Amino acid sequence: MHRYRTHTCGALSEADIGTDVRLAGWCNRIRDHGGVLFIDLRDHYGMTQVVIDPDSPAFAQAEKLRSEWVVRVDGPVRRRPAGTENAEMATGQVELYAAEIEVLGPAAELPMPVAGDQEYPEEIRLKYRFLDLRRERLHNNIIMRSRVIDSLRGRMKGQGFTEFQTPILTASSPEGARDYLVPSRVHPGKFYALPQAPQQFKQLIMVAGFDRYFQIAPCFRDEDARADRSPGEFYQLDIEMSFVTQDDVFDTVEPVLRGIFEEFGGGRPVTQKFTRIPYRESMLKYGNDKPDLRNPLIIADVSQAFADDSVTFKAFKSVVANGGVVRAIPAPGAGAQPRSFFDKLNDWARTEGAAGLGYVILDGEAGAPVGKGPIAKFIPPEVLARICADAKVGPGDAVFFAADTEAKAARLAGLARTRIGRELKLLDEDKFELCWIVDFPMYEYNDDDKKVDFSHNPFSMPQGGLEALETMDPLDILAYQYDIVCNGIELSSGAIRNHRPDVMRKAFAIAGYEESVLEERFGGMYRAFQYGAPPHGGIAPGVDRIVMLLAGEENLREVVLFPMNQRAEDLLMGAPAPATPKQLRELHIRSTATPPSAGPKPEADPDALVSPHGA
Amino acid sequence: MHRYRTHTCGALSEADIGTDVRLAGWCNRIRDHGGVLFIDLRDHYGMTQVVIDPDSPAFAQAEKLRSEWVVRVDGPVRRRPAGTENAEMATGQVELYAAEIEVLGPAAELPMPVAGDQEYPEEIRLKYRFLDLRRERLHNNIIMRSRVIDSLRGRMKGQGFTEFQTPILTASSPEGARDYLVPSRVHPGKFYALPQAPQQFKQLIMVAGFDRYFQIAPCFRDEDARADRSPGEFYQLDIEMSFVTQDDVFDTVEPVLRGIFEEFGGGRPVTQKFTRIPYRESMLKYGNDKPDLRNPLIIADVSQAFADDSVTFKAFKSVVANGGVVRAIPAPGAGAQPRSFFDKLNDWARTEGAAGLGYVILDGEAGAPVGKGPIAKFIPPEVLARICADAKVGPGDAVFFAADTEAKAARLAGLARTRIGRELKLLDEDKFELCWIVDFPMYEYNDDDKKVDFSHNPFSMPQGGLEALETMDPLDILAYQYDIVCNGIELSSGAIRNHRPDVMRKAFAIAGYEESVLEERFGGMYRAFQYGAPPHGGIAPGVDRIVMLLAGEENLREVVLFPMNQRAEDLLMGAPAPATPKQLRELHIRSTATPPSAGPKPEADPDALVSPHGA
Repeated sequence: MHRYRTHTCGALSEADIGTDVRLAGWCNRIRDHGGVLFIDLRDHYGMTQVVIDPDSPAFAQAEKLRSEWVVRVDGPVRRRPAGTENAEMATGQVELYAAEIEVLGPAAELPMPVAGDQEYPEEIRLKYRFLDLRRERLHNNIIMRSRVIDSLRGRMKGQGFTEFQTPILTASSPEGARDYLVPSRVHPGKFYALPQAPQQFKQLIMVAGFDRYFQIAPCFRDEDARADRSPGEFYQLDIEMSFVTQDDVFDTVEPVLRGIFEEFGGGRPVTQKFTRIPYRESMLKYGNDKPDLRNPLIIADVSQAFADDSVTFKAFKSVVANGGVVRAIPAPGAGAQPRSFFDKLNDWARTEGAAGLGYVILDGEAGAPVGKGPIAKFIPPEVLARICADAKVGPGDAVFFAADTEAKAARLAGLARTRIGRELKLLDEDKFELCWIVDFPMYEYNDDDKKVDFSHNPFSMPQGGLEALETMDPLDILAYQYDIVCNGIELSSGAIRNHRPDVMRKAFAIAGYEESVLEERFGGMYRAFQYGAPPHGGIAPGVDRIVMLLAGEENLREVVLFPMNQRAEDLLMGAPAPATPKQLRELHIRSTATPPSAGPKPEADPDALVSPHGA
Repeated sequence: MHRYRTHTCGALSEADIGTDVRLAGWCNRIRDHGGVLFIDLRDHYGMTQVVIDPDSPAFAQAEKLRSEWVVRVDGPVRRRPAGTENAEMATGQVELYAAEIEVLGPAAELPMPVAGDQEYPEEIRLKYRFLDLRRERLHNNIIMRSRVIDSLRGRMKGQGFTEFQTPILTASSPEGARDYLVPSRVHPGKFYALPQAPQQFKQLIMVAGFDRYFQIAPCFRDEDARADRSPGEFYQLDIEMSFVTQDDVFDTVEPVLRGIFEEFGGGRPVTQKFTRIPYRESMLKYGNDKPDLRNPLIIADVSQAFADDSVTFKAFKSVVANGGVVRAIPAPGAGAQPRSFFDKLNDWARTEGAAGLGYVILDGEAGAPVGKGPIAKFIPPEVLARICADAKVGPGDAVFFAADTEAKAARLAGLARTRIGRELKLLDEDKFELCWIVDFPMYEYNDDDKKVDFSHNPFSMPQGGLEALETMDPLDILAYQYDIVCNGIELSSGAIRNHRPDVMRKAFAIAGYEESVLEERFGGMYRAFQYGAPPHGGIAPGVDRIVMLLAGEENLREVVLFPMNQRAEDLLMGAPAPATPKQLRELHIRSTATPPSAGPKPEADPDALVSPHGA
């Protein structure tokens, strides 16, 4: 018989009745029913009921057990007495009668229980993460995360991609966030950077001729934490392909993501053919570039309607006259809402820095709407009919207005769309709506510096190539740059890259940068492009965000094995921690912090525990 | 037709003759045969011959092409003229007649050629790694590395293991090497460490109940470079399992490694059942704990023979009298070697710090050997016969001796065994000999500090558990600790872990450490063990070393995509590099290095290239 177990805790069934077995696991719950002890013995694979009655030689030992002790139990498998079967457990028809119990790992009193669904403060959960992870929901999330990553790998390999490992100790990368730095011991005064993304390396892999790259890639950004972004590190499905157009990237990525959402989405419907929405259309219709398409509301521009001479609502008219816009957000069925519905939305709009949200409640007949509400009287019937047609609303509905500069109105309208959609319960939460945002502008006008700037990634290929850069108004040039969005969450940006040094120099010149900027900041990649670079492009969907969506979790902490807290601390391992003076000396750095009251760690290294002769 | 290619460069065959196709790739070689141009067009998938004659509209364009330019070529597929087929190329029966050529990526003059096998200095190779990687051998090595890792993953998952990602920004780990540190921006004066191995995390995963963990894990050690260890980072197949004995670990790992060596070893034989050699036996028979079993020589202890009163060789007698040993290294067939063979070995032994290697050349009859050489006259025939029997040598052979303290004699004998095996060409290079080294001692006596120390890993479970610690001489206690060795290269250490805080406290007390050492240095893991820890154990074979063995390479540089040089520099990306004063300020550190003459990077971040309104 094996030293610890003949079966796992999820394995026994009626077929095993009468055989002697050995199980090992954690005491999930211990109950005393009239002197007979029942233990739910738990391991990774499941749970088995163990019974110990006072006649058993193991009874005295069993009485000492407490929750979360790890034990080995020997004994015969019995059919459960009629009426005590548990159809919800895989092992629910049987129980193990304990003849012998060995304690393998006792447990001190628990700072948080494992059995049950009670909520615990983050600090306790992270400090005792090994207990937290024993809980069913978290355990299942982490296993799903592993399975999602396996499936992503399988799907990429199935399409002829090869996984590569790119360096983690490297140089600063042009991703625009703050780097984590690692002081060099060998080169005083110099530092490695942890990669914000393997962007340059994956492009170099294409220049090296490997054709189709992917990696489940760890990325590091020293940014303040958000619920959907871990402080420190996160993973992305990093992809790059050579000799491709934007359509090729889409045709590659769509089946991978659709497949993952179908495989792990628990039957929730998934977009079959991802919609492609030009950036400007998305900003108009959804008020942002990451639309939640589960929300059926579509914003309309009604600036011209309000500019009409017959309209007398001066606040909006002056916005339009000054180059601003008015956007209409439909609120279908909102005619039946109480006054408080409208007031609350107005209050909220003011917290967003707007003067308020104008609105009209619609009454009357289809095609001949009659407006009600504070600003209705300023809008004559013909204009109101046009607005209703544009915003696709009619009697019984309402329509809200956001009026401001284009960027501000779009943003407010987008937020209002989300809010109205939720308040009116218009969203079907149980589906995955995926879309591409395409045709991002290459440049935008920077009002602060009074100059043209790159609007997103300087290294994307401009649509039309060199000719477009030489002949078009920069603000009209679009880039082969795209985002993939699911349920209003941006999973990734991507682009067809600019692989031509001549096009790159011109693109940088338009934004006012010398070639020296390319050489100094992006030398590795820029140099490589001068030795035979293939056209290439890629994308990098965030693994953590995909798993969050699939698990229905709103915080990354629930899908990451050992997350840091919001202050970028690992409470379990005690990181970050003071370094020893010897370590800092070796790294040629000095801390400028005032010494912490606890003082630095004693100057000793773990190696000192091992004899110098040992390996 | 696709924008860049209808086929890859490895795809065309006789079936395509007569069709119009489009290829894209690199100009591997360009030849001019009597005015007709031949281009070997290369991509990741293969090579296709392109022909351009002066009648082609593409001829003028083709004349401008140079090696490593990236081009698109359109035209019909033709059968190669009889006699010009190339049976060694997959596409060797056909050629593409170029009707149109588009340059997709021109190349400047190359610092190193891609075609051909010429050797280039490391500095050029690493600075232009994107060219180096285009070369066939390196390209194939890197692809094999990816396939090995895929196969390792598949084999582990096939045995019910789940892959997890453990943190990379973490606390110092007790592996005994130097940490890479990462200064914290949020916590002045504190530092993260990059993991030397995910050792504590994988044990925590077991305590969290996940049962079978693996990870292709990046590890970081700030050690000086060696050919078989990259500076900076390397990968290991990190494994941990719960409720297992040492045998279970062996039964899990053997099929994985055997399978990998069989799958990628090109038909070279692989050990079917890995030998298990106790540490002390290995030190005796092979002179080290990583024996190359392709070498058939086995060292014997002949101390007692030399201690015999009849032996008059005082140098060895006094070694034995002072507690030292004499080890015999057989040299089968060496009787036929010239005097210089023996002299060279003696010279070499002196460079190793020994007084020399004694030796006897054997003559006479089987069973009645007659000795020749400098020390033969001191050894009477009966004793020589015993030595020959122990060392398994006879007439026609020779036997060498290493006499010193046990550790030094073992080491010298081991080195001599390797050298003699190679000189006499006794090794069958074309096989993979794998073995386990087991039964490492838990403690050893530290002569410098005059105390008992851990000899290897303080966290291995002592054989016999608490009882052994309480009752045995510490120097006799063995640990459930093991190494896996292939062809004389240690692939990994591993152990059944000490999961019991009570056993751990006792084990540390024997080496003179207080419980506070456990709490301060290994708090995360030590605390976890107090809340129900399962018995567990694992191992972590080095991926880079496995790939080196399979590829037959002697330097890690040949199996790593973007390696650093021996001075831990990334010559391609320019890492490490000076940081900006702003970066250092934000991280609360100051460099103590004298400023480099080039001065720090200009104070600017890449984000400044993108308008603040962009995403």
